[in-house]
Amino acid sequence: VKPVSAAEVITAPPAIDGTHLWGSLEAAAEIGPWRAPGVQRLALSDADRQMRDAFCGWCENAGLALRVDRVGNIFARRPGAVDETADPVMVGSHLDTQVAGGRYDGVLGVLAGLEVVRWLDKHELSTCRPVEVVSWSNEEGARFRPSMLGSAVFAGALDQEVALGQTDEDGLRFADELDRIGYAGSAEVPGRPPHAYFELHIEQSDSLDRNGLDLGIVTSAYAARGMTVRLRGRTAHAGATPMRRREDPLVGAAELISALDVIGRSGGEETRATATRLQAWPNRTGITAGEAVLTLDYRHATPDGLTRMTGELERALDEICARRGLSFAREEEWEFGQDISFNPALAAAARRHAARLDVATTDMPSSAGHDAYWLATIAPTLILFVPCVDGITHNEHEAIDPERVLPGVNVLAASVLEAAGQ
Amino acid sequence: VKPVSAAEVITAPPAIDGTHLWGSLEAAAEIGPWRAPGVQRLALSDADRQMRDAFCGWCENAGLALRVDRVGNIFARRPGAVDETADPVMVGSHLDTQVAGGRYDGVLGVLAGLEVVRWLDKHELSTCRPVEVVSWSNEEGARFRPSMLGSAVFAGALDQEVALGQTDEDGLRFADELDRIGYAGSAEVPGRPPHAYFELHIEQSDSLDRNGLDLGIVTSAYAARGMTVRLRGRTAHAGATPMRRREDPLVGAAELISALDVIGRSGGEETRATATRLQAWPNRTGITAGEAVLTLDYRHATPDGLTRMTGELERALDEICARRGLSFAREEEWEFGQDISFNPALAAAARRHAARLDVATTDMPSSAGHDAYWLATIAPTLILFVPCVDGITHNEHEAIDPERVLPGVNVLAASVLEAAGQ
Repeated sequence: VKPVSAAEVITAPPAIDGTHLWGSLEAAAEIGPWRAPGVQRLALSDADRQMRDAFCGWCENAGLALRVDRVGNIFARRPGAVDETADPVMVGSHLDTQVAGGRYDGVLGVLAGLEVVRWLDKHELSTCRPVEVVSWSNEEGARFRPSMLGSAVFAGALDQEVALGQTDEDGLRFADELDRIGYAGSAEVPGRPPHAYFELHIEQSDSLDRNGLDLGIVTSAYAARGMTVRLRGRTAHAGATPMRRREDPLVGAAELISALDVIGRSGGEETRATATRLQAWPNRTGITAGEAVLTLDYRHATPDGLTRMTGELERALDEICARRGLSFAREEEWEFGQDISFNPALAAAARRHAARLDVATTDMPSSAGHDAYWLATIAPTLILFVPCVDGITHNEHEAIDPERVLPGVNVLAASVLEAAGQ
Repeated sequence: VKPVSAAEVITAPPAIDGTHLWGSLEAAAEIGPWRAPGVQRLALSDADRQMRDAFCGWCENAGLALRVDRVGNIFARRPGAVDETADPVMVGSHLDTQVAGGRYDGVLGVLAGLEVVRWLDKHELSTCRPVEVVSWSNEEGARFRPSMLGSAVFAGALDQEVALGQTDEDGLRFADELDRIGYAGSAEVPGRPPHAYFELHIEQSDSLDRNGLDLGIVTSAYAARGMTVRLRGRTAHAGATPMRRREDPLVGAAELISALDVIGRSGGEETRATATRLQAWPNRTGITAGEAVLTLDYRHATPDGLTRMTGELERALDEICARRGLSFAREEEWEFGQDISFNPALAAAARRHAARLDVATTDMPSSAGHDAYWLATIAPTLILFVPCVDGITHNEHEAIDPERVLPGVNVLAASVLEAAGQ
């Protein structure tokens, strides 16, 4: 199967009107209700199972063939018209959410993929290549680390045994929980690279919304690093022990959080830094902390900028611990987004479809990680961003304006159709 | 029964040699072993039950009559020689520990009281008044708040129903746990004020140790305040959300911890301030905090100084929250140590006995809270501090030099004997 050029997309079918998609999104938002209008569907929870079951049901109704791999990634396949052994075009995202989850992060991309297939069916458009709608396991990393786990295993960047052995805060294993919810599949990982991968996602910041643009063509990724730092001091009496005798790692962690915030603000829109998790011990009244374990995350629009941030963070860590008599250990370091490149030809095609459909677009970087990051390491990949209201995300008030999302869904549909070959 | 003056303590019996006391302390240190040489005996835990059982057994071996009140305070009584209805002289402390507990905090005072009774028996010294060795429930507050719970209920400062209804972090009720360990007694609370109350305790700072002194006569208490502050912001994406859109209460809490540390260091030896407990939510990777709940504690050698610290803290809290777009609520405020006065006559008597026994003493304040604070509100009360090595406490490495503790135990014995009347 050879690629099909834009010129070969002969008939432009009527656009998707969104009715079915919004209905599916509403139904999905009923699953895992939490702090209305939010949802909470932690990976491999009962709510995740219900959401997967609903998605699989919708896929079967659309006549798609389901396949589940060893880490629970779900592939819903529409056959190709020419060669069933051809690598498929994949389109998808994730169905899990954060603890404080909104109605659109992830699920919009999966259901938009399903809508593309429904649209192909409605207009009786066959494609040369198969099209697969994908739901990746545990994108958020809110329950099992790392984030983007399913796509990382699929892309061969994370060993399946490591992934299956991850435990949540209650000590429950990924493998056991996957089995419990009935999504421990048999398809081999790493998976066979697709012909192309598309992911539509809410922007999760406010630049599209603020600038009245309906579509972001993601052309680069922020470089991101994270780590867990364990600070160790000495427990003491909160009242009796003079301040000069304190070796309090909670105070050290507090200073590190403040330093990180300054580092995160140093580059304006180009930088981010967050202390996401802090656990002090013993964390009781009457006693000073003996340990504080801080998980942090920082990002820069460029790899060089990230290197500078790393230096600033390391200097702050050294200085704080030396001054406060603390020791530290860096644990669980990770990074992503360095040297990610999205496919220029797919981006150019998306721009052409946007122009034809009169959709205002902009090229933009992604500062959030997405499953597409891992897919980009094995296949031509494109992320499309659609606006979310006021940029609010990972929050129950996450919202979209359907009229401003539909243009992106139609560009996605045209892009998938072109990549799969008409 | 009229008080007996020092001059009436006619025969000075041989001093306590400590052998039995050190043996009891060693045996106690075997109960609730944790991070050797430390112990962990959280209030109403199995370890607390074992420690109480051992203490009660030792008291019975010493011929003492046991009484337990409704909140689990234990009283071991040696009868008086003159009038069995006379108010007793009480001597004691507590048997529970912090999570990171040492071998001497609390238990030394209880077992020193028992040793005083053994000494009276050994030398066949009868006292006019009864002498009661006391163990107060839940002094540390590490499992059930507030700290000094048992003595507060005994003194009528805390309602017994409130105390019995307190819950630990697992939601277990004080009343149920007290019943479970078999120490829900029938003696009424509030209790009848004793004739006098004595408490011997390790200093928990380093001034006695550093200055080569063996005994501190506690003449005043630091004024202490504490509160739990709930900071509220807005969850957001740790990568996607620009720093200018953050309302992160964990960063706010970090700034408050740093401000508190500065306030705590502002008055040298006269001030303390500690962030003891911090719980952020959702506390997961990939998402910024939506709430942070900070428990803090600050103390000053004078009530006026405490008022100044309160003002500084309130200004910091207002400023941080205003600047970071956070709201806050102050919850669970408490204070103690204001206007506590210890009994000058008991202090003078202790100084006389120290002089007679050639023990170097100093008057000093207490910056830690003790059960004696509550007893001081209902009866003449004295706290005696003995040195602990390098001031280390609330830590597994808490240690004493027996040779430097024994002088204080002998001053305690002579003081109890005098107060109880020979």
